[in-house]
Parts: sequence; structure tokens; C-alpha cells
Amino acid sequence: MLRMKAKENSLRPLQGVIPPMVTPLSQDRRMDAGGLERLVAHILCGGVHGLFLLGTTGEATDLEYGLRRELVERTCALVAGRVPVLVGVTDTVFEESVKMALFARDCGASALVAAPPYYFAAGQPELLSYYRKLADALPLPLFLYNMPSQVKVSISVQTLVELAKHPNIAGLKDSSGNIGYFNACRYAMRERPDFSVLMGPEEAMGEVVLMGASGGIAGGANMFPRLFVDLYNAAIAKDVDRVRTLQERVMKASSLLYGVGHHNSSFVKGVKCALSLMGICGDTLAEPREPFNAADRERIRASLVELGALR
Amino acid sequence: MLRMKAKENSLRPLQGVIPPMVTPLSQDRRMDAGGLERLVAHILCGGVHGLFLLGTTGEATDLEYGLRRELVERTCALVAGRVPVLVGVTDTVFEESVKMALFARDCGASALVAAPPYYFAAGQPELLSYYRKLADALPLPLFLYNMPSQVKVSISVQTLVELAKHPNIAGLKDSSGNIGYFNACRYAMRERPDFSVLMGPEEAMGEVVLMGASGGIAGGANMFPRLFVDLYNAAIAKDVDRVRTLQERVMKASSLLYGVGHHNSSFVKGVKCALSLMGICGDTLAEPREPFNAADRERIRASLVELGALR
Amino acid sequence: MLRMKAKENSLRPLQGVIPPMVTPLSQDRRMDAGGLERLVAHILCGGVHGLFLLGTTGEATDLEYGLRRELVERTCALVAGRVPVLVGVTDTVFEESVKMALFARDCGASALVAAPPYYFAAGQPELLSYYRKLADALPLPLFLYNMPSQVKVSISVQTLVELAKHPNIAGLKDSSGNIGYFNACRYAMRERPDFSVLMGPEEAMGEVVLMGASGGIAGGANMFPRLFVDLYNAAIAKDVDRVRTLQERVMKASSLLYGVGHHNSSFVKGVKCALSLMGICGDTLAEPREPFNAADRERIRASLVELGALR
Amino acid sequence: MLRMKAKENSLRPLQGVIPPMVTPLSQDRRMDAGGLERLVAHILCGGVHGLFLLGTTGEATDLEYGLRRELVERTCALVAGRVPVLVGVTDTVFEESVKMALFARDCGASALVAAPPYYFAAGQPELLSYYRKLADALPLPLFLYNMPSQVKVSISVQTLVELAKHPNIAGLKDSSGNIGYFNACRYAMRERPDFSVLMGPEEAMGEVVLMGASGGIAGGANMFPRLFVDLYNAAIAKDVDRVRTLQERVMKASSLLYGVGHHNSSFVKGVKCALSLMGICGDTLAEPREPFNAADRERIRASLVELGALR
Repeated sequence: MLRMKAKENSLRPLQGVIPPMVTPLSQDRRMDAGGLERLVAHILCGGVHGLFLLGTTGEATDLEYGLRRELVERTCALVAGRVPVLVGVTDTVFEESVKMALFARDCGASALVAAPPYYFAAGQPELLSYYRKLADALPLPLFLYNMPSQVKVSISVQTLVELAKHPNIAGLKDSSGNIGYFNACRYAMRERPDFSVLMGPEEAMGEVVLMGASGGIAGGANMFPRLFVDLYNAAIAKDVDRVRTLQERVMKASSLLYGVGHHNSSFVKGVKCALSLMGICGDTLAEPREPFNAADRERIRASLVELGALR
Repeated sequence: MLRMKAKENSLRPLQGVIPPMVTPLSQDRRMDAGGLERLVAHILCGGVHGLFLLGTTGEATDLEYGLRRELVERTCALVAGRVPVLVGVTDTVFEESVKMALFARDCGASALVAAPPYYFAAGQPELLSYYRKLADALPLPLFLYNMPSQVKVSISVQTLVELAKHPNIAGLKDSSGNIGYFNACRYAMRERPDFSVLMGPEEAMGEVVLMGASGGIAGGANMFPRLFVDLYNAAIAKDVDRVRTLQERVMKASSLLYGVGHHNSSFVKGVKCALSLMGICGDTLAEPREPFNAADRERIRASLVELGALR
Repeated sequence: MLRMKAKENSLRPLQGVIPPMVTPLSQDRRMDAGGLERLVAHILCGGVHGLFLLGTTGEATDLEYGLRRELVERTCALVAGRVPVLVGVTDTVFEESVKMALFARDCGASALVAAPPYYFAAGQPELLSYYRKLADALPLPLFLYNMPSQVKVSISVQTLVELAKHPNIAGLKDSSGNIGYFNACRYAMRERPDFSVLMGPEEAMGEVVLMGASGGIAGGANMFPRLFVDLYNAAIAKDVDRVRTLQERVMKASSLLYGVGHHNSSFVKGVKCALSLMGICGDTLAEPREPFNAADRERIRASLVELGALR
Repeated sequence: MLRMKAKENSLRPLQGVIPPMVTPLSQDRRMDAGGLERLVAHILCGGVHGLFLLGTTGEATDLEYGLRRELVERTCALVAGRVPVLVGVTDTVFEESVKMALFARDCGASALVAAPPYYFAAGQPELLSYYRKLADALPLPLFLYNMPSQVKVSISVQTLVELAKHPNIAGLKDSSGNIGYFNACRYAMRERPDFSVLMGPEEAMGEVVLMGASGGIAGGANMFPRLFVDLYNAAIAKDVDRVRTLQERVMKASSLLYGVGHHNSSFVKGVKCALSLMGICGDTLAEPREPFNAADRERIRASLVELGALR
């Protein structure tokens, strides 16, 4: 009941702060059930408007399918309809996306999110055909996930315009970081108030919401959900001064926490390390990634102290 | 006298709308002096805060040195100190940058702009050393020009922080379009109100100025200087609604005019074609580029009518 | 018995022509069992030295796991130990790689092949750790698969040198097409005659075998197995003139068949279309790819006629 | 007289080893005339078939025009018609390419070499038009220079085929390192024995000449001209065993000398450092590059000892 209401209210369009949740893992890379419970409680306590499981920050592609399902089932139960749960079904195998979607629907998820297949880089006509078939096959609204750095192709504005006509495609999460592209997508959707355009990089959420975007999938909201909710609220209230003040806090956290480490997964490592130091869940990552070493962990600790998140 | 005043007032920090001017060429690829006169008048009439010659939009790297000098000399004379003139000195040859800078100073230019050398991609330590030597050698304040799509390297935030300590380095123009990077640069410079951080892509100028950025190097201001000045003014007045309205006009122009054509230089072609249809200057481009064909030109014409810039 | 002999003879080092087999699919994207039987017979009839399942040409990452297992089981049964069967276990999920490897071992496969995980681009230390763990966990010799265009990272020569010390890592398949890299790998392995260095792109197989490389994973050998075996034999016999003659045939096929179509998967489409026209198996591709349209199919037909493969 | 003969004999097609000469600079970045004299003598003494000035190894784009002209003039005088001299005229400014070409012709150069303009990445139709105009305007035969890593675009095989019809376009130097592309170019030119296809990366010269390519622009021939000439001769004699032996020496030098340093210009630094240690010319590089530090220089020295080039 509650859940249905949430869906109707929030999903067309979906608006607000929807954190891409990390997947808490035990040291032997199984589900860290206690960590998950604390993390969901921590994030929801911040007043977020939704929760996104199994995205890039959730290390989805690198988790066993059984683990992915366990995460969806447990999280949906923990959330219990308080906010919509979005579930990533990005996969190179079409049928696996559908299977995960059906499972997510049965668990009570509200919507699905899919980046393009990520081994062969698809052309635009292939993206068009792929997403149409996927949207046809999925039991819940689908959000497109633009993530060119990982999948080697960007969903073009023209492809987006075509796909937005599909009744089961409800929005776009853009993680390209390309502001010209993001604004072009927003402009192309300007007469579609039911279609969400959500910003990936948290460093840009405040300003795009001020300009009218639907919200953000801010990874930092794993640690600081209230900060991002406050920023979102200031932005929809058009309180420019407050947006600037809060944005500075976001940038401070970003500059302190995400620059440690060297590889493609530094962001996820930074978030998990911080959550671990905050006592929420461990810092174990999916194979083949290792947590930060002691020196890097110490830098994160000092940063959290500077951010006021640790004493 | 006037010029000196402009410099002192405007350059630390440089703020506002500083159009990257196209270089008007005659059909035989010499200076189109009449077109230049009309173009400078058209742009200045819009109330812009500066003029940037010999950038990417100005096709600088592809123009004969004599033509570059002629452009600088004529434009400085036409501007006559009403606004600061910034001159691009980007070059693979260090000494040519210096020569052009001395010439620009003698013509009355106010500042210089340089992207990294663009044949060999420099490493960060090389960028550090390069820009320090350049700033030492130049007779006017230097603006760094981040343009990774053309030069294959991005000036890192850390390199920027180091370079900003140099007394002769006055700001950054970022044309990466990467909003996370731009905001990280702004955050890193937050205690340096004298250091300008300017947005390249015009599609993002409004929102970043709203957030506190110094201004924008908006290519579209060749055609629509007033629109961008109005947008800038609305942003510094924190008038969110008006920023949104004007931003929509910017996006409309962008979506109509810059999507025509296929190669790396589509943007410049679109701007020159529009200026030609508006009767300001011709659409001849530097070698090896050709103007739009009749069909593409017709699309630009129809777009200008739709934008109210032509009847 | 036969199989064991094949393994002992052929796997340290593995040498010769090892075609990366396409996966024959029925129109409803299940296994085309008849097509598979004809294809295996066709390829083995050409005298190849091994068979590689579930590589890029095999569209492995885009096939349901059940289908992948069915392919391995059926093919191993069809091959019946006549040549070593190599099975691709490339996956973003570590545990899925291991599961597929155990299954392949049980079916009688001889070795395994793995490209790096392909969502997060791993750094070199991560590649080192990943491949060591994988080689520890796998029940058969492992061949590294360098495929930077799809996985966004190249296994560095230094990482290769470290990994080659692992007793269960038996070779490298390099599909980068970068001849400087390939030769650097071969040089680094010059005192390891038991370690195979195999060329991916078929257009370069002849010359590298002439220079001492172990062989090639030539996709064109799906259609023309004998041609590549002849080329290999000419190369190990150091018969330069014959290598040149056969190489010209390879280039003719390559230039006629692989240039049709536009996206990342053109190569696979060309091979499947040709096999279909040759009556061996259908041209259905894994989602989201579609076979060539009628016009493109006609071009392939004409090319096969010109190549003497069709009348 | 002699020069004319060389041209007629050697240029259609140009064959053999044509070293891309480094530009010897004094510490204050003027011409190191003594070093140049020693270097030209050293290289010619090795029996090379031509000399290529002002390529990437020659740091052409980063040298003052006066210095470029001085290099051409002095080198042509030193060579005195003994071998053809090829002069790079790569430039973003069309007219500068022509000016340099006329100067080179007057100095006695035999041919010109041009990579695409390198600021704006040209599309294939633009490359077609650009090279046709350039070939029309140049007073000597033109060699196309494919260098995608620096200029961000590759000359497509189809564009090459069109350009090869121009009577003043005499060949291709391919520095992509992509062996599939190189072989496709060679195949496309198979009925044009007058059109040279030359390999850039020295690590691949031996095998492609064995297969019928025209020769190589081997940077290592600055230090070891005789080695590359011997390799070329072994290859045209189809002496596979000797090619393998000499190729191993090439790989040894490559692995020891070019892996030091970190940036885009490591190769040039390695060559200049080695030449400096060999007493031929200094290791000063064009701005903004610095020579190796003492530790890196020591590594190069040890490598030269190991290679038998120093005691």
C-alpha cells in the first residue's frame, strides 16, 4: 500500500536524491547483512527520496548473481516501501537483465536502471533497438543510464528523444559528467515533466537542480545523505546562497575523499573506506579490487575528521 | 588611459562574458576587414565584458602568423580600450607564443591565453614547467586554457593550484565540458577571488555563474552577445527564474545551430555560417575546412528564422 | 586418451591455428545444434590445431550462461579430443569464471582463456592480483587475453612477465593489433619456449609466425580453416614466397568481408553472414545485434563468389 | 647531378631504411652545428637509403621556423646528394607547409612528408581535400604520414586509395603501430609498385619488409644505422633466420632504451640521451621538454654498455 503510493507519487517523475548504494560485503565477499541494515538505516535517516541498488557504485557487474538477488531482497525488505527502490539490471546478457528485473519486481522494487551492454560497444541504432526490447520486456519503469566511461558509448540526445517516447522508459541518469550533454538532454525533454533527468556526479547536483533538473544519484549520499537532501531542498527553493554554501561542503568532501588511490575504482574504494571508518559497514570490495592500504586509509580517516564526520 | 582603466578594473579577476571571436576571412582567405569591423561592433554593442581573439573558435592555429597579427592589430584598434582584449598565443613553438604576446601587448591587448602545446601531449610536470616559463616570459597576464579534446591532456587540479601561485597567471578558461573538473577547479581557487575561472561551453555558463564562477567564453556570443550578457547579469543577480528562461534560449540556439555537419570543426562552421546569413561576415574557414554546403546552409537559415535572428 | 596426448603435445606451448569459433544460434537465439555440428566439422576438416570457444568472436559475454555451457559441452563432444579445446571464461564476476572453468574441464576442455574484467578498467597491480588468483583457482592452464578495445586496459609487458612465472599461466593471446606491443611481449618471453604468444588479428598471423610467434587465433578460419593452416605451415617452413601469396588471400578476404557494416561488432556479423551464405550455420547474433540487412548480405555474397567460396 | 640521379632511382618507390633524424640542439636551444655534422656522418656511414628531417622524432612542430630552415639547409649541404633527403612539412597552417616545402626544394631535398593538421581533427573528406591541395601546391613528391596518436585521426584505407591516384603523392609512412591497418594499406596498394608503404615503429620493420613492404622510418637508426640496414638487407634477401637474429637486437635496444621516462616524448628523450652518451650530440630537447635526470641517464648508459654501444 505504502509502496504503491510512493510509486505513484514519486516515479513520474522521479525527483530528489537517490543514492547509488554501495554493496556491503563481508571479508569473505558474502553479504554483510549487519552492515547493510546499518547502511540502509543511515541513508534513509537522511531523508533521501529513493535508493538505487546495483549501480556502478554498487559494483553490480562484479557481484555473483546470487549476491545481487540477496541484496535486492534484503534491501527491499529493509526499506519496506518508505522510498522507491531502483534496481540496476545492467548486463551484457539480455535475459539476465530480464530475470533480475522480475526478481526485483517480486521483491517490491519500484523501477529499474540499465546502462548499455558493456563488452561490445553498441551503435546508436543498436541502442535504440536494445532499449526498446528491454523496456518491452521489463515489468517496471526503466531508467536509462548513460555511462560512457565504462561502456564506451554515449546514448545520443537523438536516441534519448526516441526512447523517451516508450511508455515504460521513465528517465535518464547521466553519469558522463559532460554538462553540455546533460543540458542538451534536459532541453530535449523540456516538454516532458514526467520524464526524469538525473545527474550522476554529485559535484554538479546542486546547480542542475537549481536550473530545473530532477535530482541526483549522488554517491556521497552513502555517507552524507542529509547534506545532499539539504542541497536538493535549497535548490528547489531557489535559495542560491544556501546552495552555494552546501555545494562547498560537497566539494570539500569530494576533494578529500575521492582523490586517494589510482585506478578506475577509486571512487568506490573511497566511499567504502569512509563507511568503514564511520562504523557502518566494512571496506571489502568485489574481486579483483582490494581496499585501501593502511596509509591511504589513514588519509581517509584524517579527511573524515576534517569533514566533521569522525572525531 | 581608458585601456589601462579597463585592465585594472576588469582583469583581476576578469569577469563576465568574453566571446571567443571568429576570425572573418575573405574568400581567398585573407582578412575580411569589413566583416571584422561589423563583427566587433556587433559584439561590443551587446555589452560584453571582453573579447578573446585567436582561440579555438578563432581558428588560431590554422591561420598564417601574418594574419594572426593583422587580426590582433585591427581588433585592438577597433575596440579602442572599451573592453579588455585577450589574445590567444597557443603554439607548439614556445618562441612564437612569446613573439605573438609581445606584438599583442604593443597593440594594446590586456591579457594572453594559452592552451598546452598540442602535438606532443605534455605530462603534468611538463605542463607545470611550461606554463611557469611562459608566464615568466609574457608581458601580460596569462590565462590557462584547458582544452583536452584538442591537446590530448587536461591541466590537473593540482597543477592548476601550483600554477595559480605565479603572479602572472590570472585565470583558467576550461573548455573540457567536464563539470566535475570545473567545479573542482573553482573549489580549489575558492580563496583566490582575484583568480578567474571561466566556463568554455556556453551551454553551462548560466548555472556556473549562478554558483559563483567568473563568467564564460561563450562562442554563441559572436551572434547573440546581448543574450549572454543578459544571462550573465541574471546569474550574478541570482535571479534563478530569469536564468532558466534565458538558458532555454541558449539551449535552443545551441541545439539548432551546432548539430549541423560532422567533423571536429562543426561548431566553428555553424557560427561562421550564421554570421554570414546575418550579414556580418563571410563563412570562409581556414584551410582545410570548407563552409557548409547549400543544404546545411539552408538548415542554418531556417534555424536563425526560428530563433528570431533572421526574417 | 587421445585428448591427453593432444594436451601434452600441444599445450606447452600451444602452437598453430586456433580459430575463435562463432556460436551458431537459431533464430530464437537458442543453440543451433545442427549448425554447430557442421561448423565444427568444417573447421576441423581444415586441419586446425585447436578450437577456441567463447571469445569475442563467439559473442561469449552476451550469451546466457546456460547457452555457454551447452556450447562447451556439445563442442567438446563433437571434437572428441582430436584437437585441444580452449574455453573463454572472461567475466566481470570472478566466481562465474571459475564455475565455467570447472564445467569446461569436466567436458574435456584443455585450457582456458580470460580477458580482464570489462566494466571497471583494472590497473596493472589489479591485473596482476586478479590473474594470479584466477590461475590459482582454475583447473586448467590459463591463457591471458589482451583485448584493450573492449576492456579499456592493456596487460603491460611488465605485468605479463610477472604473470608468466605462474605455473598455470600458459600463454597470451594478443588482440590489440599493436605490433610493437606484440613483438615486445614475444621478446620478453624469448627464453620461455613453453609460453605461447598468439596473434589475434588474422591479417598479421603469417608474418609473426615467420618471425617465431606461436600461432594465431584467426577469426577468418571459421570460414577458411585450410587457408590459415596452409599459411601457418608455410610460415614455420620459412617459405617467404608462399607466405606472401597466402597472406594476399587472407587480405583479400579481410578487405571484402569485414568492412561491411558500421558498429563494433561488424567483424562477427561478417563472419556469421558468410557462414550462413556458405550453408554452415545461420546468421543470428546475440542480443542486441541484428544480422546484416539484405543489401549488406548481398555484398557479402558477391564477395564470397569473388573469393571462390561460393558459386 | 648526383642528387637528381638519387631521386630518379630511389623515389618511385622510395625503399629501404630512412631514419627520422633527431634535431641536435645546443643547450640554449639553437642549432648544434657540430652535433649535426657528426650525426649526419654517423647515420650515413651506416648505409641508410635516405634521411627524414623534421618528423616527430625531429621534434619539428616544437622548433622555431628559423631553426627548421637552418636544419634543412645544413643537412642537405652535409648529405650532398648521397641519399634522398625527406623533409617534414607537417603544420596546422597550410601556407607554412608550402613555404617550408619551397625552401626544402631550394636546398636540394628530394621529397616532403606531411601528417594531417593536428589541432582540429580532420574528417576523411577534409583529409582528402587537404592532401590534394597540398600535393598540388608542393614542389616535390609528398609522402603521407599517418600518426593518429598525435593528430587524433587516422588516414583511412579508402582515403589512401583515393590520394594515391594523385601524381605527386608518392607513399605512406604509417606510425600507427596498427598492423592490421598497415597490411590493409599494403594490400590496397598491391598493384602500385611505385607507391611506397613505409613502417614507422622500428620494432616491426623486419617482418613487414620480409612480407614486401618498402622499408622503415626507424628512429633507432639514429644510433644504430647499420643494424637497421643489415636487417633491411636480410629481409629483402628473404633470409628469415638472419632477420630473426637482427630483430632480436632491435628488440633488445628498444626494450632497454625507450621504456625510461613517462611522458609522450619518452622515445625522443631516450634517443637523444643515448646519442649524447655516444658523444654524437647533446640531449637538449625543444621546449617544454627536459632531458632525462641523472638517474634515468645512468640507466641509458648502462643499457648502451649492455648493447655494446658504449664501454
